Amino acid sequence: MPRTIHLDENEFPKSFYNILPDLPEKMAPYIDPKTKEPATPQQMSVLFPIELLKQETNFEDRYIPIPSELREIYLERLDRPRPLVRATNLEKHLKLPSDVKIYYKREDLSVCGSHKPNTAVAQAYYAQKEGVTGFATETGAGQWGSSLAYAGSLFGMDVEVFMVRCSYEQKPYRKVMMNLFGADVKASPSDTTNVGRKFLAEGKSTGSLGIAIAEAIERAVVTGKKYSLGSVLNFVCLHQTIIGQESIKQMQSVDDMPTHVVGCFGGGSNFAGIAFPFYELNKTKNAGIKLVAVEPETVPSLTKGKFEYDHGDSAGLTPLIKMYTLGKDFMPPSIYAGGLRYHGAAPSVSLMLQNGLMSASTVGDSQIASTAELFAKTEGIIPAPESTHAIAETVRLAQEAKKNGEAATILFNLSGHGLMDMAAYEKH
Amino acid sequence: MPRTIHLDENEFPKSFYNILPDLPEKMAPYIDPKTKEPATPQQMSVLFPIELLKQETNFEDRYIPIPSELREIYLERLDRPRPLVRATNLEKHLKLPSDVKIYYKREDLSVCGSHKPNTAVAQAYYAQKEGVTGFATETGAGQWGSSLAYAGSLFGMDVEVFMVRCSYEQKPYRKVMMNLFGADVKASPSDTTNVGRKFLAEGKSTGSLGIAIAEAIERAVVTGKKYSLGSVLNFVCLHQTIIGQESIKQMQSVDDMPTHVVGCFGGGSNFAGIAFPFYELNKTKNAGIKLVAVEPETVPSLTKGKFEYDHGDSAGLTPLIKMYTLGKDFMPPSIYAGGLRYHGAAPSVSLMLQNGLMSASTVGDSQIASTAELFAKTEGIIPAPESTHAIAETVRLAQEAKKNGEAATILFNLSGHGLMDMAAYEKH
Repeated sequence: MPRTIHLDENEFPKSFYNILPDLPEKMAPYIDPKTKEPATPQQMSVLFPIELLKQETNFEDRYIPIPSELREIYLERLDRPRPLVRATNLEKHLKLPSDVKIYYKREDLSVCGSHKPNTAVAQAYYAQKEGVTGFATETGAGQWGSSLAYAGSLFGMDVEVFMVRCSYEQKPYRKVMMNLFGADVKASPSDTTNVGRKFLAEGKSTGSLGIAIAEAIERAVVTGKKYSLGSVLNFVCLHQTIIGQESIKQMQSVDDMPTHVVGCFGGGSNFAGIAFPFYELNKTKNAGIKLVAVEPETVPSLTKGKFEYDHGDSAGLTPLIKMYTLGKDFMPPSIYAGGLRYHGAAPSVSLMLQNGLMSASTVGDSQIASTAELFAKTEGIIPAPESTHAIAETVRLAQEAKKNGEAATILFNLSGHGLMDMAAYEKH
Repeated sequence: MPRTIHLDENEFPKSFYNILPDLPEKMAPYIDPKTKEPATPQQMSVLFPIELLKQETNFEDRYIPIPSELREIYLERLDRPRPLVRATNLEKHLKLPSDVKIYYKREDLSVCGSHKPNTAVAQAYYAQKEGVTGFATETGAGQWGSSLAYAGSLFGMDVEVFMVRCSYEQKPYRKVMMNLFGADVKASPSDTTNVGRKFLAEGKSTGSLGIAIAEAIERAVVTGKKYSLGSVLNFVCLHQTIIGQESIKQMQSVDDMPTHVVGCFGGGSNFAGIAFPFYELNKTKNAGIKLVAVEPETVPSLTKGKFEYDHGDSAGLTPLIKMYTLGKDFMPPSIYAGGLRYHGAAPSVSLMLQNGLMSASTVGDSQIASTAELFAKTEGIIPAPESTHAIAETVRLAQEAKKNGEAATILFNLSGHGLMDMAAYEKH
């Protein structure tokens, strides 16, 4: 069997898989923090394109067709389908018996180095269809900002990115990448918004994701552009399901199927992307595949958070979302994986966890550098610190199966590479 | 036709293609600078493993079989064969007629981001077979050092890298990558060698490739390790021919064949890697494929250099090599592409040029940023500044063919990605 499992272009999914109708209960509505009533479509449409809002609240259609133009973008511009790899070198290193197997999906191969462009191009596609001329968004480490910048460049849309100032200064390469794709990048807090000027005046100049979100929302409203978010929301998770759908076909093509599917967990989009289609197999075919989300020990939204209404941002501007949360004021420590430092969790994933349809585990920061090194030396890919959480959990599960003499086939999502994160590996 | 053309593992070459017997004249011997006599195998064997020296001077065998263990390393550890891509998006952007086509080979997908690991793993493989325990080498921008570090990690060999100090300070990520693979990295000049201490005492602390080579050679001799070089030499070009051999099979699989093969040119290994197998087609099948090496306007070894004996290094320590050279004291300006700032040229490529069997052209530094941006926006890959020279020449050739109403099928080697070079793109 070859290490690398490709998939023909004509096998690329024709639809996104919408988990909402398959969840055991209807998701609680988003709540307007002022009125305490469900947020109206009109309120939401100031920020988001109509088609995306329809997807956000589509509780009927299990499959949402991918328009042919968008499908072509996935094939031609993102070079999907992406390979799935049998981790033969890692397996050998761990001396696994032949019935304990590891596979991974290579989302690191995208233009910006992670799975984020999968939803960025979809959001840009639907938006330009409605005449939207541009987006404002925030970015922490820069992964999301560069993905939306790329997507904007495909459709000639303006993209304005508010990048948390400390990241802006620590990760200049990400800014260069966003500029390369024509985006306008501002260190947040900036002097271009009221909220930015307010925080600057208060001396809060290093910034936070909460402030950057607030700035992006203000700019979207003032300029008549739309706001864009790269995780958490239903339509984001929906677009990412192409990952899991491809993976199922690839596993089938080598006559195999995972017993465990593992994804790291920040807001939820990469876990959802790989896990939701396997959830469908569990529901419709009783496949019994274990779905495991892995979060940092110090940001335990799923494992120690409460399932309750909370704001999506730290500034308290967004509607209230029913989700697992550590509280909007939760301030995580500095860790390798900047992309996993989020207080909340996708509401769809939260519902799955609440209903025992998946599990969550944690990985300590002390394991990250050594696990990344192990993976680089064996599989020849330097993984993103975020993805390394999934690798560490996979190694743990494989060793446990070996010890117990049990068979296991573990598939994890290699959501990104670490080439732009070398500073973090050096620092820690 | 799909954009991406894969190749089955069993189609991976069984042999390296050795161009030496196919060259129109026998290559001039390396000369010992002291005796002015041809360097003896004994002199050379202090620095290089025996098997590599045999390859260096093999003027008989057109094909040198790849040992099965090494072949497995190419398949399992370097994930070869690598894809070849039809540049459909770039073609559309340039509004090319249907008979002007562009293809590129994705050498950027390797563990260290370029074609360099192809020879690094081969050198390490042959060396460990002879009981060599480690290598000393130099690196400028860090691409070669990280590739040899990776290769060393596969065989448990020590790798000591002397990195030109100004790069060491400007490109810390490369150092982190080398450390990740277990290499010992020293800023050169260092205080660990006589020659390093001498230059430090003279206040030449920013370093140069010439000094770093001298330090690596001294360490190799003192420690009983071997010295390793990542370009120029025959055995290096030999190992890289797997690139062109794969490409021929991939082009054949879509019933096509290039009219032009383009590679950027520094020392010569990536150009040789893609072009030599097509040279064989020209020689044996009269294929008439144009082979084009592209160098920076400011480092015109092939286009303005002299074909004469010169040292391979700036310090005058290596044997004299008959090649196109700008003179060992030539000091190129700072340009985007650190990897192309070499005064000389592979002697095999020099002989081809001297005999009119290929052509050379130049690209100005002012084209690099805009061409890289064009490629990133259309093909979704941020190219290395080195590879961008090949892209710029490809675009020029395609536009010329379009203008003249001629058919053309241009294949270029995308020798590396630019994710570790973002600082250069920012600076310029």
